[in-house]
Amino acid sequence: MAQNIYDSEEFFKEYIQLPRQVIGLDGAPEWPALRSMLPASLTGAKFLDLGCGFGWVCRWAREKGAVQVRGVDLSENMLAKARKFPADERITYLRADLDSLELPPNTYDVAFSSLTFHYLKDLPRLVAQVYQTLVAGGTFVFSVEHPLWTAPRNPNFIEDSEGHTVWPLDKYLDEGEILTNWLVDGVIKQHRTLATYINILIEAGFTLSAIDEWAPSEEEMPANPGWEKSRIRPPFLLMKASKLVLQKAGT
Amino acid sequence: MAQNIYDSEEFFKEYIQLPRQVIGLDGAPEWPALRSMLPASLTGAKFLDLGCGFGWVCRWAREKGAVQVRGVDLSENMLAKARKFPADERITYLRADLDSLELPPNTYDVAFSSLTFHYLKDLPRLVAQVYQTLVAGGTFVFSVEHPLWTAPRNPNFIEDSEGHTVWPLDKYLDEGEILTNWLVDGVIKQHRTLATYINILIEAGFTLSAIDEWAPSEEEMPANPGWEKSRIRPPFLLMKASKLVLQKAGT
Repeated sequence: MAQNIYDSEEFFKEYIQLPRQVIGLDGAPEWPALRSMLPASLTGAKFLDLGCGFGWVCRWAREKGAVQVRGVDLSENMLAKARKFPADERITYLRADLDSLELPPNTYDVAFSSLTFHYLKDLPRLVAQVYQTLVAGGTFVFSVEHPLWTAPRNPNFIEDSEGHTVWPLDKYLDEGEILTNWLVDGVIKQHRTLATYINILIEAGFTLSAIDEWAPSEEEMPANPGWEKSRIRPPFLLMKASKLVLQKAGT
Repeated sequence: MAQNIYDSEEFFKEYIQLPRQVIGLDGAPEWPALRSMLPASLTGAKFLDLGCGFGWVCRWAREKGAVQVRGVDLSENMLAKARKFPADERITYLRADLDSLELPPNTYDVAFSSLTFHYLKDLPRLVAQVYQTLVAGGTFVFSVEHPLWTAPRNPNFIEDSEGHTVWPLDKYLDEGEILTNWLVDGVIKQHRTLATYINILIEAGFTLSAIDEWAPSEEEMPANPGWEKSRIRPPFLLMKASKLVLQKAGT
């Protein structure tokens, strides 16, 4: 079971002050890139959000025409806040641990997850669940903290001997649990390399459709104060995968 | 046209002393991982090596049963040495610039490249050429210097304020030409992010089959002295892609 830091009161009172929680999707600068990976139309779609938090994306999916939206989260704090929004009988929330969640086969058109998988201990198991819960042709879009962010022993920019700001990359290839201080001390995350994220998708049967090591572009930077250093080391990794039936030509 | 550093005498006299040039494939510690991405059998296959150097992999492919092997390189120095090995009429070498090379359609079963693409200015063009020169079901395997290696302004390990060795990652997302000092000063390489390498494959029509951010494992380290720091920052990126005909299920 993943650590449930979101139900720590100390963490939660800090967390709910982050822009992306206060103002929703417009407070998440990577959202336009992530949204662009989702199908252009969700009309009639069944939509699954793993680690749905306050339900911002669940409500967005409904606005875009999804007929059934399922939000799953481990945190009662998060789901309690999600449920305070006006009720929508087409959106259902489930409290569950993504490290043991089982999903119904051949059900959803789109599976989504934002900044959740780096907390999970057994991601290959969940990705296999996602594969079998998607219908053929279904789409899987997710973001995680970039492996360059979860790698270092010391995840803070430093200055080199010439006074130049650099990211002190350390132990990139050594995967596993890392203990970080984010909002509070003792937040447990799982470091995986970029190759591991991709190979987990491929081994589950997915076809990788797009990948984005996201940071604001130089042109977008004026609208994203505080993200300047992120071009040194991208904060987020975004991926789109498809459940396609592959057939070798000529066979 | 890519810089032809290999025909600089100063560079070449240093280069031919590298273990991988002196003793061939056994001197390239990543070769077992790269080889494992190639088809188990090359019997009857037509094999293309882009940036073939001294022809080590061309000769290996012939030993594995390839019936036609084509090695391409920009460097006359490299090809002159390749041609000194006993002649094999099934291996042909071509001197050509990979930034403008055109390849015959629907010809090769396997396309391969080792540590070459980070020199090329127009990789999307070449990858599109590779796609169309492969037969349906064909395999494309290549390695490049890892984007973490080609990114920094200063590509050398440093010590942080606690005396800990780190890789000073800088400007990871800023792609383009970099000027490095490797064996000689002024070697020009092209920095691309890992996402860019993958998206170039996807946009050409390839399906990504496997990816390896290669360094020796902890278990392999005793056999690879001098590579200890490479687990901090992997030196090479290896990828396998397939030319599959994709068909959405149910359509």
